[in-house]
Amino acid sequence: MSYELQILRALIDHFRKMPGIGEKTARRLAFSILYMGTEEVKSFAKVLLRAKEKVRFCKICGNLAESETCQICEDSSRDGSVVCVVERPADLYVLEKTGRFRGRYHVLHGVLSPLDGVGPEDLNLKGLQKRVEREGIKELIIATNPSVEGDTTALYINELFKDSDVKITRPARGIPLGSTLEFIDGSTLSKAIESREPI
Amino acid sequence: MSYELQILRALIDHFRKMPGIGEKTARRLAFSILYMGTEEVKSFAKVLLRAKEKVRFCKICGNLAESETCQICEDSSRDGSVVCVVERPADLYVLEKTGRFRGRYHVLHGVLSPLDGVGPEDLNLKGLQKRVEREGIKELIIATNPSVEGDTTALYINELFKDSDVKITRPARGIPLGSTLEFIDGSTLSKAIESREPI
Repeated sequence: MSYELQILRALIDHFRKMPGIGEKTARRLAFSILYMGTEEVKSFAKVLLRAKEKVRFCKICGNLAESETCQICEDSSRDGSVVCVVERPADLYVLEKTGRFRGRYHVLHGVLSPLDGVGPEDLNLKGLQKRVEREGIKELIIATNPSVEGDTTALYINELFKDSDVKITRPARGIPLGSTLEFIDGSTLSKAIESREPI
Repeated sequence: MSYELQILRALIDHFRKMPGIGEKTARRLAFSILYMGTEEVKSFAKVLLRAKEKVRFCKICGNLAESETCQICEDSSRDGSVVCVVERPADLYVLEKTGRFRGRYHVLHGVLSPLDGVGPEDLNLKGLQKRVEREGIKELIIATNPSVEGDTTALYINELFKDSDVKITRPARGIPLGSTLEFIDGSTLSKAIESREPI
């Protein structure tokens, strides 16, 4: 006989649907809710609903926004001639945190992945084509993840714009700063040697 | 300038308050909420509130319950003469999952931890004393965690009942099954040698 409370099971199941959360972590999170104050849990539930309700995708670039367009698209100080293409708003966030990129962004909301049934029409690519046609974009930096899917998507976008004047680039691949050669995988190291730079 | 949406920040902050969740995980979880369906998020918020509202602690043993007493205390087939004392309902759950223990439980809701300001009066110890006086308990298995706080709490409970007839035991300490000697820490190994058993 299992003595698990139904409502606790439902709560665990909700946590399990989140990325990277397995049964044990979901259980720990669910238990932590029971130990929180009632007001705290009420506020959590409210913020969950409000975030889902208020946050939408910018109609220009696909970034998160609370109005029709996002704060970056609305910022006239950003350089509109360089657009960095990313998979997810989370990637945009880490790039912004570096503070080195002053151009604009375009969020694909995914990568090409035939095995998962994700084709070009499922990504925010039509919007990118429109922007290239209308906004006088000179360079697209394709910052998809260094995975098979990310690379495929980068090649696909390169193909898409091969007849246009827009320059297509990718962030450099190589040895990450602060790492040690000993622990770097072979393919990264090969790529780093191949793309060696003068000091 | 930070482009982070206020409501997203609030959501991340709520996730960060949960155990074992740092900034990066909290951010990933918050983003996943934005990608969930509206109905899904509504159901999540509802379950959060209901779990907090409905689940309380059993007035006998401190386990999670939806009524005054928990399902284990209400189950007359369980052996009331052996009571296993645990720190948290989560510990009770893993013990139940083994299916080997048919006695009852007592949940302390914490451990003695003077540094965190947790003294005996903060634990569910009065309830345990009452149960020992009234319920004819013959054995208390103190299954607190094998930490300094857990061990201190076990010794404290042992002291508390030294004048009563109740037998106080602890789960055996030793080499966990499926591990390799090479990777076991010195104190566990010393304890295992010290408490060696005839084959």
